[in-house]
Amino acid sequence: MGIVVKKYGGTSVGSAERIKEVARQIIKAKEKEPEIVVIVSAMSGETDRLIALGHEICSVPDKREMDVLVSTGEQVSSALLSMALIEMGCPTISLNASQIEILTDKFHTKAKICKINTDRIMKELSKGKVVIVAGFQGITEDEDITTLGRGGSDTTAVAIAGALQADICEIFTDVDGVYTADPRIVAEARKLDIISYEEMLEMASLGAKVLHPRSVELAKKFGVKIHVLSSFVVVHGTIVTEEVADMEELLISGVTANAKEAKITVMDIPDKPGMAGKLFSALSDVNINIDMIVQSETRGKTNDISFTVDETDLQKTIEVVKESVREIGAGEISYDRDIAKVSIVGVGMKSHSGVASKMFKSLAEHNINIEMISTSEIKISCIIRISAMEEAVRVLHKAFFDTH
Amino acid sequence: MGIVVKKYGGTSVGSAERIKEVARQIIKAKEKEPEIVVIVSAMSGETDRLIALGHEICSVPDKREMDVLVSTGEQVSSALLSMALIEMGCPTISLNASQIEILTDKFHTKAKICKINTDRIMKELSKGKVVIVAGFQGITEDEDITTLGRGGSDTTAVAIAGALQADICEIFTDVDGVYTADPRIVAEARKLDIISYEEMLEMASLGAKVLHPRSVELAKKFGVKIHVLSSFVVVHGTIVTEEVADMEELLISGVTANAKEAKITVMDIPDKPGMAGKLFSALSDVNINIDMIVQSETRGKTNDISFTVDETDLQKTIEVVKESVREIGAGEISYDRDIAKVSIVGVGMKSHSGVASKMFKSLAEHNINIEMISTSEIKISCIIRISAMEEAVRVLHKAFFDTH
Repeated sequence: MGIVVKKYGGTSVGSAERIKEVARQIIKAKEKEPEIVVIVSAMSGETDRLIALGHEICSVPDKREMDVLVSTGEQVSSALLSMALIEMGCPTISLNASQIEILTDKFHTKAKICKINTDRIMKELSKGKVVIVAGFQGITEDEDITTLGRGGSDTTAVAIAGALQADICEIFTDVDGVYTADPRIVAEARKLDIISYEEMLEMASLGAKVLHPRSVELAKKFGVKIHVLSSFVVVHGTIVTEEVADMEELLISGVTANAKEAKITVMDIPDKPGMAGKLFSALSDVNINIDMIVQSETRGKTNDISFTVDETDLQKTIEVVKESVREIGAGEISYDRDIAKVSIVGVGMKSHSGVASKMFKSLAEHNINIEMISTSEIKISCIIRISAMEEAVRVLHKAFFDTH
Repeated sequence: MGIVVKKYGGTSVGSAERIKEVARQIIKAKEKEPEIVVIVSAMSGETDRLIALGHEICSVPDKREMDVLVSTGEQVSSALLSMALIEMGCPTISLNASQIEILTDKFHTKAKICKINTDRIMKELSKGKVVIVAGFQGITEDEDITTLGRGGSDTTAVAIAGALQADICEIFTDVDGVYTADPRIVAEARKLDIISYEEMLEMASLGAKVLHPRSVELAKKFGVKIHVLSSFVVVHGTIVTEEVADMEELLISGVTANAKEAKITVMDIPDKPGMAGKLFSALSDVNINIDMIVQSETRGKTNDISFTVDETDLQKTIEVVKESVREIGAGEISYDRDIAKVSIVGVGMKSHSGVASKMFKSLAEHNINIEMISTSEIKISCIIRISAMEEAVRVLHKAFFDTH
């Protein structure tokens, strides 16, 4: 057995009792897995508490200082879990991003990992210690503290598993795996034993909250096998790995929904080359991710462009777009928060036709209007009214899973 | 005006409101003091909350991990104060011990500063920034996080003032200076305008909680002038500096009391050279500070030795002493928590006789029994019953200050 990386989320380390339970699980695992690296999130609620504290000081806190503030949450839980293990007789050491050297870029509050130095971790593992790593955080070359954005501890876990060439990266969470749909919306949803990186990536991006998309991307890049499982019940979860032949038995793997996007429409953009490029590169310069883009047919000498972004980026997006609109001489800007995205995902659709038409037909039969469409090799997404979101998920799940 | 170091304690940064008030004070000060370095403690109650969290996990938490845990308190307040200043338009940066390189020894939870790298602070000051430093913390050469013990932020402040050759180190606290006695015990106590390092050191060691003794020691070593003042009211506080001639006008500077010591007595120690040395070097090896020591007259072939330690070190002391007693073949060990130490302090007593006898006589007149005595050039301490402590302070204050 090689190195095993285990990541415990906020609810898994949410109290002293839970932390002790996690410590017991790790000690049990160590009988078979001699080299264990554990990544921890902040105790549940702690990150929100710290953010609220920052906002008590000012409405838009300085981002560098926000990272200094918020990164303490993971440092606390790493120390507590380490103490618990040491108390139980298991040699353990906690390390933060600065001690390890988890180097990131300088985009505070949503930094990207550039490089991980594995020396200190390997040194501590070679002494027989369990290594507890504070997730979510990094440092820049100038030793400024950064954080990786929400869900960043998953990213830390996968990046470390990749850097250490670990056998597996176990993501312990409060659900026991990846489901064909959100079980709170679709009662018949079932757990997947295995899912490909590509499918998981689409599902993660589309709103399945089990794994952060960036962590899945990283896992794919470094070939890190992920096992998503519960820290509360001992059952096999879902393995996220390379695409394998028998995955195609399923036409689609899941139905997902995301209510956290907003749509922006820019009207009357001059129909000249490079206009869209200017608009979107201005957004990319400030690190805003665009999701779906739809450009209208040219009417006269102008186009309209609609696109979606994460709801939290809406305000910033509007500011940047306003600036661009002035530069390129476009027209009105409008935005809409009341949209939702429903998607179906599956490597199976590569080799089956008619998936899209079946999706559109199912939605139409229930009078759900489609406002934007985007497709990839393995997914189809539709923007609809937010009020129809849950019904759409149920309709699609029934359409694609009842036939199996 | 050169560099000014300002240290704000826990109550001074105890809430968002207080932090904003401190930010306003700093901005006002910056008009006259262009180069400001601020050291902050954790928000009041935060260190205790973190320690309690550690104790929820286990009764004797690993000390290295305790430091990882507890040091987050100062990181939080440094980020919050920095945010507040930036919000108010004052360029500011927070730095922690690792970013600065505040190097300490490896004695976790009570580390000593070895060296401070001033490069990063000077670089940020030269950019016109206010530099906020997380107090109380350090790092070892191996980059492990350490803390300096209770009151450690004072030590950080003075050490940084020394390293930067600052003009002054202002210690903002919830009292407005150093008093001739604790005003909660002696209503007539009055504030001192100026006090020498030596006197302050004795007063600090003896229980005046205004400054941590180690910080006064450091200030003396590096010639750092300290100004103790209130962060709540704008009045001149007390300057702690080199001994100056007119200080001697006062016979004594203060009466102090400390209820936080415990007495240990080891009986029947063989009357051979090196016995006491063995006993106390074993304690010093585990970093326990001995305060007062009294050795009895030899009776037959043995001595008794009584000594006092900080109450929090009592359990550890007993363990170590038991071991030593086995080695050197001594007798019974007893201990007593119900003692208190009252002291009078003053450089004036160097040149006046009769101070000790006046002290003993005053206590005797009020039937307060003296159990141990220790003296230095500028102080006299007596161990008495804890129940008589407050009365003793009042009696002594009256005896020495009413005559002026």
